Amino acid sequence: MERMKKLIDLSRNLQTPFVLFDLEILKENYIRLKNSLPFAEIFYAVKANSHPRIINTLKELGSNFDVASAGEIEKLLKLGVAPEKMSFGNTIKKEKDIKFAYSFGIDYYAVDTEMELEKIALNAPGSKVYFRLIIDSSDSDWPLSRKFGTTSEHIKFLAVYAKTLGLIPYGISFHVGSQCNNKFKWREALKEVSNIFKELKLNDGINMNLINLGGGMPVVYDKPIPTVEEISDVIKDSIEEYFYFVDDLKVIIEPGRSMVGNIGLMGSSVLLRSKKTDGEWVYLDVGIFHGLTEAMGGIRYKIIVDGKEKSKMKTFKLAGPTCDSIDIMYEEVELPEDIALNDRVYILNTGAYTTEYVTNFNGIYGPSIYFVQDIELEEAEINSEANSAF
Amino acid sequence: MERMKKLIDLSRNLQTPFVLFDLEILKENYIRLKNSLPFAEIFYAVKANSHPRIINTLKELGSNFDVASAGEIEKLLKLGVAPEKMSFGNTIKKEKDIKFAYSFGIDYYAVDTEMELEKIALNAPGSKVYFRLIIDSSDSDWPLSRKFGTTSEHIKFLAVYAKTLGLIPYGISFHVGSQCNNKFKWREALKEVSNIFKELKLNDGINMNLINLGGGMPVVYDKPIPTVEEISDVIKDSIEEYFYFVDDLKVIIEPGRSMVGNIGLMGSSVLLRSKKTDGEWVYLDVGIFHGLTEAMGGIRYKIIVDGKEKSKMKTFKLAGPTCDSIDIMYEEVELPEDIALNDRVYILNTGAYTTEYVTNFNGIYGPSIYFVQDIELEEAEINSEANSAF
Repeated sequence: MERMKKLIDLSRNLQTPFVLFDLEILKENYIRLKNSLPFAEIFYAVKANSHPRIINTLKELGSNFDVASAGEIEKLLKLGVAPEKMSFGNTIKKEKDIKFAYSFGIDYYAVDTEMELEKIALNAPGSKVYFRLIIDSSDSDWPLSRKFGTTSEHIKFLAVYAKTLGLIPYGISFHVGSQCNNKFKWREALKEVSNIFKELKLNDGINMNLINLGGGMPVVYDKPIPTVEEISDVIKDSIEEYFYFVDDLKVIIEPGRSMVGNIGLMGSSVLLRSKKTDGEWVYLDVGIFHGLTEAMGGIRYKIIVDGKEKSKMKTFKLAGPTCDSIDIMYEEVELPEDIALNDRVYILNTGAYTTEYVTNFNGIYGPSIYFVQDIELEEAEINSEANSAF
Repeated sequence: MERMKKLIDLSRNLQTPFVLFDLEILKENYIRLKNSLPFAEIFYAVKANSHPRIINTLKELGSNFDVASAGEIEKLLKLGVAPEKMSFGNTIKKEKDIKFAYSFGIDYYAVDTEMELEKIALNAPGSKVYFRLIIDSSDSDWPLSRKFGTTSEHIKFLAVYAKTLGLIPYGISFHVGSQCNNKFKWREALKEVSNIFKELKLNDGINMNLINLGGGMPVVYDKPIPTVEEISDVIKDSIEEYFYFVDDLKVIIEPGRSMVGNIGLMGSSVLLRSKKTDGEWVYLDVGIFHGLTEAMGGIRYKIIVDGKEKSKMKTFKLAGPTCDSIDIMYEEVELPEDIALNDRVYILNTGAYTTEYVTNFNGIYGPSIYFVQDIELEEAEINSEANSAF
């Protein structure tokens, strides 16, 4: 909260809507995760926030990158990220994207079905593949359903099939679900992964080396969650207990939300307050189509109305500025009862999956993007000018 | 269907994903609506598809435009649309957008609450306002909920309040809901509007002149719907019956979906087919984030898999190409049982609310946009070159 207060203070002169990112928090997040899981390589999930400043900061810290498409690969190459630092983590790849990735030497591909293996064998022959295990993610705020991943039994089959296609069955990835609140989910998943490794070793002579822990480390929105360190301890213990038989074990983790979620502050303004037959409505200058898409999917952002932190609270409906009835963030949200036109409304922890989702729908453009480091620099310059004037 | 077959034929050489628009169909839609409601002025709802070619075509036909923001106004001004041809139909306007609109002479503003009236009185003094009536839209595929509009009682109050603020209470708009399948909804709504007009005339000496029929004329997706002519007949009869007491009645209609829905054909490709524990999945190179957003909201597009029109059908799950579990179009959809990698999949009637919703999420870019008229021109040139070569 201290950090957020600082962000709010720094944003005073910014016109809404905006998102203000703090690269210092990003650095801290990276170092904290690195320290808590020192043996794991970090592959930042670019999809969470692909802003060049964020990619550059992580590149300088030594991060690797999990990419979802040729578009992301191209962007990273332009920023000087080496292909060896990338993993193609999307299980639904265009063939020409695979070919493109392979031509630059990208060597890790996520897979959860036969057809994807065949596409990789054809377009990136000899590459390393890792299989995405589906696990029950009911402890997550945003379960990943069955769109991605497959069963243990199927992975054993796919590993053998990969070998016959000339690919290297290299390991297993799993994703406990975004915002997973039960740290023992990682333990369960790792036990299942170890069983697959064991059976493939014994029955098929296939030695897998890679555990990809996926993303899923939670970010504080509006309720308490386990810390990175607590989750990391569970992961460390589980790996020690279950993977004693693997030589050259390689562990990677793909944080997206947990790396950038808390580095962003969104600032918006109240456009309208309206009493309706179904309750009172507040409309902001940002909504579902301009950065708050995940509110629709269940993310409960913490919201602060500037200067009204001590007001009595009341239940409102909160909606965006477009002529679209799905542009509603919350059917019920607590806001100060005296919230009024042009009030500044801060939406906390909006660093992940916000600016990436922006459309220009209704001719309304998304929030402007600012960085704390630029504002501080500017203020330092103004101060030094002011000082030199006296 | 004949038209769609022609579009499919013309699109053979286009790389997926794309949307192919036919401006001839657009012209026909305009003329058909104009002929069926000759006394109504058409205000095209720009939000449905703001492509400059579409705006230009409608401008040449004499259309007016319903705009949602300063961004849309600016776009239209650049295309040479006169401010007198625009109506600011969003009930949630930024103050600076109102000021901007007023500075160019835009004179119609939609309103459904006191605060919005006050904003308009301040930033566009003396303007004409029309009030959005909320009507029960349970006969629509996509009801507009309570985000917009207010009750008859409240409108009567707002009209009086508008007058005291120096504004001109000019009329009433309503929206029967997008894809309204019950033509008698318009009759009910018009009766309610006429009662408001009457009471304001008798009790407050306010003469309102404008009926804004809103949008809501349906487009064929996958089930039969009433025709434009059938709906127009209901509207004509109702206006005659209920508005005999209004001098200088002005009727406008704001078609969006019904103007452009059927002018677009989306072409996509199968990226992956996968058997999972919960059924078989098909993944396309477009999804929720790249134009098919409305599938999530309940629109059932008609889908054709090229060359497999006669195959036996089977139930699949249909999803998009991103690493996001909400990127799923349909949990259940009938597709040819032999659908395979790289099959071309055509999604019909994708002219409205598709390209407007596109994001670059996952580094994946939206469908390329083409126009039938360019392709025909190109083919004509190739043919004439080929002919002259002989």
